[in-house]
Amino acid sequence: MPADFALIPDGSVTTPRGFTAAAAHAGLKSDGAPDVALLVSATSCATAGVFTRNVLRAAPVAYDVDLLAERPGRIRAVAMNARVANACTGAPGLAAARAMAQAAEQAAGLPARTALVLSTGVIGVPLPLEQIEGGLRAAAGSLAADGGLHAARAIMTTDTRPKHCAVRFETPAGMITVGGIAKGAGMIHPDMATLLAVLTTDAAGEPATLQPLLRRVADRSFNAISVDGDTSTNDSVLLLANGASGVDPSRDGAVWKTFEDAVQEVARALALAIVTDGEGASKVLEIQVAGAVSEAAAREVGRAIARSTLVKTAIYGGDPNWGRVLAAAGNAGVTLAVERLSLQAAAADDQWLTLASGGATANPDASTARDIFRQKTIRLRIDLGLGRAEAVVWTCDLTPDYVRINADYTS
Amino acid sequence: MPADFALIPDGSVTTPRGFTAAAAHAGLKSDGAPDVALLVSATSCATAGVFTRNVLRAAPVAYDVDLLAERPGRIRAVAMNARVANACTGAPGLAAARAMAQAAEQAAGLPARTALVLSTGVIGVPLPLEQIEGGLRAAAGSLAADGGLHAARAIMTTDTRPKHCAVRFETPAGMITVGGIAKGAGMIHPDMATLLAVLTTDAAGEPATLQPLLRRVADRSFNAISVDGDTSTNDSVLLLANGASGVDPSRDGAVWKTFEDAVQEVARALALAIVTDGEGASKVLEIQVAGAVSEAAAREVGRAIARSTLVKTAIYGGDPNWGRVLAAAGNAGVTLAVERLSLQAAAADDQWLTLASGGATANPDASTARDIFRQKTIRLRIDLGLGRAEAVVWTCDLTPDYVRINADYTS
Repeated sequence: MPADFALIPDGSVTTPRGFTAAAAHAGLKSDGAPDVALLVSATSCATAGVFTRNVLRAAPVAYDVDLLAERPGRIRAVAMNARVANACTGAPGLAAARAMAQAAEQAAGLPARTALVLSTGVIGVPLPLEQIEGGLRAAAGSLAADGGLHAARAIMTTDTRPKHCAVRFETPAGMITVGGIAKGAGMIHPDMATLLAVLTTDAAGEPATLQPLLRRVADRSFNAISVDGDTSTNDSVLLLANGASGVDPSRDGAVWKTFEDAVQEVARALALAIVTDGEGASKVLEIQVAGAVSEAAAREVGRAIARSTLVKTAIYGGDPNWGRVLAAAGNAGVTLAVERLSLQAAAADDQWLTLASGGATANPDASTARDIFRQKTIRLRIDLGLGRAEAVVWTCDLTPDYVRINADYTS
Repeated sequence: MPADFALIPDGSVTTPRGFTAAAAHAGLKSDGAPDVALLVSATSCATAGVFTRNVLRAAPVAYDVDLLAERPGRIRAVAMNARVANACTGAPGLAAARAMAQAAEQAAGLPARTALVLSTGVIGVPLPLEQIEGGLRAAAGSLAADGGLHAARAIMTTDTRPKHCAVRFETPAGMITVGGIAKGAGMIHPDMATLLAVLTTDAAGEPATLQPLLRRVADRSFNAISVDGDTSTNDSVLLLANGASGVDPSRDGAVWKTFEDAVQEVARALALAIVTDGEGASKVLEIQVAGAVSEAAAREVGRAIARSTLVKTAIYGGDPNWGRVLAAAGNAGVTLAVERLSLQAAAADDQWLTLASGGATANPDASTARDIFRQKTIRLRIDLGLGRAEAVVWTCDLTPDYVRINADYTS
């Protein structure tokens, strides 16, 4: 198990030293709320990125992938906007992403090709570049060490709450802080649909070691949550390490392990905040998959359960219809031995009730089962009986409100 | 294009000669409605079957697969029940499926190992065998040439309407009739979740040629519809050919082609009836995928769009949020060339509106787009620009009623 970290109150991307941020209203959101944000590091950052696997990746994703391939050790800023995704916008969209990055660099007085861009919102609409440029100039004029919270608000779309956190830990060489912000409420699924997350740290690092670390962390956090099974064109998770702490965690195996745990804790907290704030969500379902031949297989089974609308509506209704859970597992595309499958459920109190074993009903007490499924947080534990690998996946219930929210998003 | 067939009013599995059927109330449905059905052929049938790919296949599926492998030319009957799926019931469940088949054989005075079984309903609950046996005895006593409609009613679960149809065509050697019944409202997805369909014909046939025909037909009908993306433990499509017409369509290439078209037409009509009656559905979405390198690739793209909850909620809301359609296509796991993608939409009137071309927005007229998306039937045409293969997939919208229906199914 990872180490325990205490979350820093109001922690965010600007809690690690050397990062400032600000937000501005550029006229994209009709309610006057901030819709553009800028994050700046005082020095160059070693940067890692994990992006959508959707074939139709948006222009900002294409721009960032290209920039990170070229200058992964030279990143200074991240420019963000909500309301327009700049996806399915063709060559003009790519030019707009480049122009948005240049606007951020100019506004913050940074060298060329040092700013990444993140966009989220409606697909197929051209980026309103002039407005965004104005917003970035305004943001650059108000960069502050507590601006991360404002940035977290600016990237909200259907989110009802800003998502931000930070943790801190001591090492023999000094203190390291890791922070993050994220957005995402609907269209969240393995491979991070319409999910933007920016993680920052004042640790020193190298892109070559941060990249695999971020991939592992993302698989166990952002890629382990599902709201509606859709994967967007814009998903991006960034990790920027500016070295302002003077501590390089990679010099000590134990410190490196704690550093990865800290990044994992920030990512996990943001991912859980996204699930809890899933569009229309009223409940959270934690799916523990054990006894798999590999962590990847365990995660696939968890994802199959997490994306089943029948499971998610049963969770909403407090209906212990656990057969749907096993049926969803059977659709995961993972080899299973039915006679070795067992399924348990619990609420927060760790009183596990066995629902099925040997792939068949365990005839659980109906009222106990119903009590568990009526809780706000429901945990399922499915043991495949095939190996020792495990994974945990989180999802929320599917509610009538989800449908209402998504029925008229563009209008 | 297949030949046009006129649907026979009130056609069903008993419209082809030599088939009788009946239904009975065995006490499984609480409202006294029929819940058990029996279909009997006067002579042995050449039989083909297509079954769920869910790893957790239910006991009746396992029983039927085994029986069809052993005696595909000797089938005389199909025994069906609703309300209990006999899935995740272990070895006792398999014994119960066998006992249900034996009960049908005894009740109808048939040789051993000539009856197939189909069950649908809640997973993980033991089959109430005594009740079902009583129901099958009652049904056997009232077998009739118009009993197919009663059978169609008996297998309904959350269906609001019975699904049945039949077509007839002339051949130089005489007339052939094909009929069918089906159930399925929720949990319908490629690979036929919680979908039961029985097709009958008085054509003569061989299992070895009927099986590949049924596979092709199922791929273009039952496997081309999606209600909620879930695949059940019990999906089964059967085709029974008793030869009562005296006509063997396989002796003439043109007749064989027409025969396949007729089976396809019955399957397509039943599949569309299922989508139209999707749980809580208020609209139907037809997705035409063209320009694919293979029919399978085209169908995968169509399925990815059909199972996207974001697309389905946009259809419900009448919101022309077509970016979600392209984003869903991008998740299909099929190689796409973004710059070759085009997307059009139309209502019933064939006035196609181009939404995107070259993978980017075509800036469609917003009010025309909204008019189309507000219709009861919406058609999308996505051209991948990669080849000449096509497929059509159907789905329904996702509505608040879907959530309500599925929130408390077992209770």
